[in-house]
Amino acid sequence: MKKFLRINMADKSAVFSAPPQGMELFGGRALIAKILNDEVDPKCDALGKENKLIFCVGLLADTPAPCSGRLSVGGKSPLTGTIKEANAGGTFAQYLFSLGLKAFIIEDQPADDDWHIVVLGEDSVEFLPAEKYLGMNNYELVACLQQEFGAKISIASIGCAGERGYRNSTVQITDPDGKPARAAARGGLGAVMGSKKIKAFVIKEKGNYRGEMLDKTAFAVRNKTYSKALLGNHVVGGLRALGTAVLVNVTNGMGILTTKNFSKGTFEHAEAISGEHIAELQGDRNGVMVHACHPGCIIKCSQIYNDADGNYLTSGFEYETIGLVGANCEIKDIDAIARIDRMCDDLGIDTMDAGCTIGVAMEAGEIPWGDGEAAIQLVQEMIDGTERGRILGNGTETAGKHFGVKRIPTAKGQALAAYDPRGLKGTGVTYATSPMGGDHTCGNVIGMPGDPADKEGKVELSRNAQVAMALMDSLGMCIFASFAFENPENIQLLAEMVGAKYGGDWDIEKLMGLGVQCLSLEKNFNRLAGFTEKDDRLPAFFSEEALPESGNVFDVPNEELDAALPF
Amino acid sequence: MKKFLRINMADKSAVFSAPPQGMELFGGRALIAKILNDEVDPKCDALGKENKLIFCVGLLADTPAPCSGRLSVGGKSPLTGTIKEANAGGTFAQYLFSLGLKAFIIEDQPADDDWHIVVLGEDSVEFLPAEKYLGMNNYELVACLQQEFGAKISIASIGCAGERGYRNSTVQITDPDGKPARAAARGGLGAVMGSKKIKAFVIKEKGNYRGEMLDKTAFAVRNKTYSKALLGNHVVGGLRALGTAVLVNVTNGMGILTTKNFSKGTFEHAEAISGEHIAELQGDRNGVMVHACHPGCIIKCSQIYNDADGNYLTSGFEYETIGLVGANCEIKDIDAIARIDRMCDDLGIDTMDAGCTIGVAMEAGEIPWGDGEAAIQLVQEMIDGTERGRILGNGTETAGKHFGVKRIPTAKGQALAAYDPRGLKGTGVTYATSPMGGDHTCGNVIGMPGDPADKEGKVELSRNAQVAMALMDSLGMCIFASFAFENPENIQLLAEMVGAKYGGDWDIEKLMGLGVQCLSLEKNFNRLAGFTEKDDRLPAFFSEEALPESGNVFDVPNEELDAALPF
Repeated sequence: MKKFLRINMADKSAVFSAPPQGMELFGGRALIAKILNDEVDPKCDALGKENKLIFCVGLLADTPAPCSGRLSVGGKSPLTGTIKEANAGGTFAQYLFSLGLKAFIIEDQPADDDWHIVVLGEDSVEFLPAEKYLGMNNYELVACLQQEFGAKISIASIGCAGERGYRNSTVQITDPDGKPARAAARGGLGAVMGSKKIKAFVIKEKGNYRGEMLDKTAFAVRNKTYSKALLGNHVVGGLRALGTAVLVNVTNGMGILTTKNFSKGTFEHAEAISGEHIAELQGDRNGVMVHACHPGCIIKCSQIYNDADGNYLTSGFEYETIGLVGANCEIKDIDAIARIDRMCDDLGIDTMDAGCTIGVAMEAGEIPWGDGEAAIQLVQEMIDGTERGRILGNGTETAGKHFGVKRIPTAKGQALAAYDPRGLKGTGVTYATSPMGGDHTCGNVIGMPGDPADKEGKVELSRNAQVAMALMDSLGMCIFASFAFENPENIQLLAEMVGAKYGGDWDIEKLMGLGVQCLSLEKNFNRLAGFTEKDDRLPAFFSEEALPESGNVFDVPNEELDAALPF
Repeated sequence: MKKFLRINMADKSAVFSAPPQGMELFGGRALIAKILNDEVDPKCDALGKENKLIFCVGLLADTPAPCSGRLSVGGKSPLTGTIKEANAGGTFAQYLFSLGLKAFIIEDQPADDDWHIVVLGEDSVEFLPAEKYLGMNNYELVACLQQEFGAKISIASIGCAGERGYRNSTVQITDPDGKPARAAARGGLGAVMGSKKIKAFVIKEKGNYRGEMLDKTAFAVRNKTYSKALLGNHVVGGLRALGTAVLVNVTNGMGILTTKNFSKGTFEHAEAISGEHIAELQGDRNGVMVHACHPGCIIKCSQIYNDADGNYLTSGFEYETIGLVGANCEIKDIDAIARIDRMCDDLGIDTMDAGCTIGVAMEAGEIPWGDGEAAIQLVQEMIDGTERGRILGNGTETAGKHFGVKRIPTAKGQALAAYDPRGLKGTGVTYATSPMGGDHTCGNVIGMPGDPADKEGKVELSRNAQVAMALMDSLGMCIFASFAFENPENIQLLAEMVGAKYGGDWDIEKLMGLGVQCLSLEKNFNRLAGFTEKDDRLPAFFSEEALPESGNVFDVPNEELDAALPF
C-alpha cells in the first residue's frame, strides 16, 4: 500500500503520490487523525470546502490478519463538531488496497451544482456525471451502478440523506453480496461526502497489488495462533450463532437495555426482539445467521434477515439498532425494527442516532411509544424530506432540542449506544470522554470482570479499552478481533505480527502506543476545535434520575472523567 | 442601588442582599460579565438549570445622565453559545432601581411545569401562577397584566417564542406608553427566561429609592455640558427627525445597504423604505416621529408608526429591522415591514435575526424574493409554531443550515446588522471579533473619518469603538449618547460624572478601563466555552464574493482580527 491519492473536487484533479515521510505506521483511524491534524482547521465548517473526507485502510489491511478488512472513513464531523472516524465492513477496503492505495483524500468542493460518480482505478480517477442518480437512495443506486459497471464492483455511496446534508448521514458500503448494508455510520460523514457533491465512489474491479510483508513466515505462524485463540473465545461463539443481537437478553438481564428513551433498563418485550427470536424466525424464513460483513472476517456475526415472505429485507442488523429502535422506542415488532434498519441503510442514516431520534420524538409526543408503524412513518418523512423529516435527519441532539425535550441521550451531540451508562459505568466513561462523542465502539467494557455498576476503577477500565479500540481501528481490524486480548500472550502475538509486516521489535507497550498516539492526536484536534474537559460529560439526567430497576445513577466523579485520557 | 436580589426558581425562594464586596464599579453589561464569570459554567446548557438570567441597571442609572435608563439582560446565549448581554429601553430599568435594586438574578429552574408571573417589590417577591397567560403573545399579555395590576406597571415579558424555547427569543420591555415595543432582543435570552418558566416580571409601581450621589453639584454641572454637546451633534439631529431609519438612504448611498441576503449593497427601492418616506407617511397618519424609548432619553429617535388607517401598528421601528426585513429580503412595502416588526415584538423574536432568517429562507427558495405577504406568512408560521416556523424561530444560522443555504450572514451564530461588512470594514471587524457574535451595537463605526472600505486601520477603529460601547453598556447609557465623544473633552466630563457619583479621580483612561475590563471578562467566558480566535471570523463568502457595485471584499487579514481585542 504505497500510494496516497488526493482528489480535488474544485478542479476535478487527482494526484497519486507516495505517502509522506513518517506516515508508514499510521493506518486507519490514526492515519485520519494525523491527516486531519496536519491539514484541516479544527474550527472549519464541517460541510465547507476546508474540511477533507478521507478513506483509508488499516495497517494490517493487506495481510491475512483476521477481520482486518475494515474501511475507515474520516473528517471533521458535522454532527458533533469533533474529529471523526467511522469504520465499516463491506468489500471496499480490500478493493482499495488492491489498487495499491492506502488512502484517498477528498479536498475542496465544486463551485457549481454538478454531482459526480468518482471511479477509482489503479492509476486513474474518472469523474462521471451523476445527474441521473440524484435523488436515489442506496439500494436503487447500487443496483443501477451494478447494472452500469457490472456486478463485481465495490461501492461507497450516499443516499438522499447525504445529498441533503442531513447531519446524521452515513456512507454506505457494499457487502460481499453487493448490498449497501454496511455503513460508516456515525457522525454524519455522508453529509461531508454530499458537501463535496460525490454520490458514489466506484471501484470496478480489484487491482493487482497484493501487499508487502517483511517476514511472511513469522506473520503466518503468529496469525494462525491468534486466529485460533479468537475463534475459541466464548463471546465469539454467541456472536456467530445469533449475531450481535445475542446481547438483547444479556443487557436486559443486566438491567441496562436502553428502554423508553433511557428511562428504564429492562424491556418487557425483550424476548420478542432477541437474537434467539431472530434465529428462530430466520430459520423459518431461510435467512442466514452466519454471514461475514467483509472478506477475511472469521467471526461472521452478520446475517441476512428475510421478511415474512422469505425475501431479503436487510443485513447487518445489529444489537445497537435493535436496542435503540426497539427497546428504546418500546417497539416489540422485530420486523418493524428490521424494516427501519433497511430504510435507514437505504436513505443513508445511522440507525443508532435514528433510534434515539425516534425516542426523543416519542418523548415529545410526536408519535406514541411503541408504535412501530408510526416510527416507520417518521423514517419515511426523513426519506421524503418533509420539514419534520429534515429535522429528524439531523439526529438526536438537533431533534431533541427542536422538540424541547429535556432528556436527550447524547454525548458531544452523538447518540449513545444501547447500554445504559448507569449500569455499565465503564462504557459510560467511554461515552463521556471518547474524542468521537457518544460511541460504544471506542471502548465498550461489557463482559469485563467486576461489578459493571460499581464506579470504582471504571475510568481505568475505559481508558484501557479506548486505547485498545483505537489500536484495532488503526490496524483496520474489527474491534471484536480484540476478544483474543483476554490472554496477554495474544496481544504480544499481534504486536509481533505488526513487526513481521513493518519490521522492528514490537511488544505490547509499543503496540498499545499506536492507540495512545491516535487518541492523543484526536484529543488535540478537538481541543483546537474548542472542546474542553467540560465537554467530557454525560447528560445530567443520568446522574439525577436513577434507573428504576436498580436505583443506579451515573456517579463517576467529574475529576476522574477529566483524567480518563491523559494523553 | 444597594441591593442584589437572587430568585431561585427551583424552590421559589428570593433573597435580597448587599452587592458582594468589590462590585461597586460593575454595572450593566460589565456586571453581567462579572457574575457570569464568577457563577456560571461557560460550557453549561444555556437552557438548562445551570445558566442564570440576570437583569440589571448601569452605573449611572440612578442619575440624570442623558439616556442612562437602559436595562441590561444577560446570561449564556442559547443562540451563540457565547456570553450575552442585550440591553433595551422602556421603563423597566427606572422602575428597577427605584426599588433600590441594582440587579436581580434568576437561578435554577422548576422541576415541574408550573409557570409564573414574578412580581417584584421593594422588599418582596411574589410568584403568581401564570397558567392563564400561557400561549399569549406580548401585546395581549401586557394588556391583560395592565388590566390586572393597573396601567402604571412596568413589564418584562416573553411571548410564545420564549415559552417554546426559540433560540431567537427576546425579552420585551414595556415602553413609556405601556406597549411591549422595546426588546432585549439579541441572543435568545427570552428562551432562557422561558427555560426558567417565567412568563413576565412585573413591577407594580415605582419604589422610593432615588439614588445616591457623592457630589451632586459636580455631577450636574458636567451633565449639563455633556447633554448640550450631545444634542448639538449633527447625527442626533437626523436621528431625532427620522429615527434610525435616517440611515437607509445613507447606507444605500454608501453601497452597504444589505440587499438580497447580503448579495448586493444597494436596493433599488431604498427610497420606499427610507426614513424620509416614513416621516411623510406618518405625517399623513398622525404617527409620532420624535419619541423617547425610555424616560431620560433626550435623543428621542424612537417613533410611533401608525397603519394606513391611522391606528397604532408598532414602535421602535429601527433601521436594522427595515434594512434586514426590507432591503435584505427585497421587500419594498414599508407597511409590510412594519407589520413584521409588530409581529416579531408580539411573538418575542429579534427582528434582525428574523430578517436574516427570512433572507436565507428566500435564498433557499422557500418563498419568493420581495414578497412581503409571503414573509408575513413565514412570521405567522413562527407564531403558529408549525414545524417550519419552529425552525425559523431558532434564527438565521439554524434555518440557513436546515435549508442547506451556503451564504449564511452570521458571526458566532448571530445575524449581522444592516451594514455590509465589505464596504464598512470597521464594523465588519466588530461583527467578527465581538464577544457577543455579530452585533453592530458592540462597535459600529459608520460615520467615522476615513474611507470605510479601506481595510487599513479598521482593527484599531473597531477596538476603540468596542471599548467605548462596552463602557456605555456598563454605564447603562444608550450607545447614541457616545456621539458626544467626538470631542474628547466630553469624554473627560463623563469620566468626572462617574467620579462625582462614586468618588475618586477619573480620567479618560480610567473611564475606558471599564470597557476594557468588561470585554476582557467576556472574552474569558467565551474562551472557557470553547471559542478561539478561529471563531473571530466572518463567513467566507464576504471574502470570496465582491459586492457587485464596488467590487469590495472583506479583506482584513486574520492576523489583524486576532489582535483586535488583546485583553
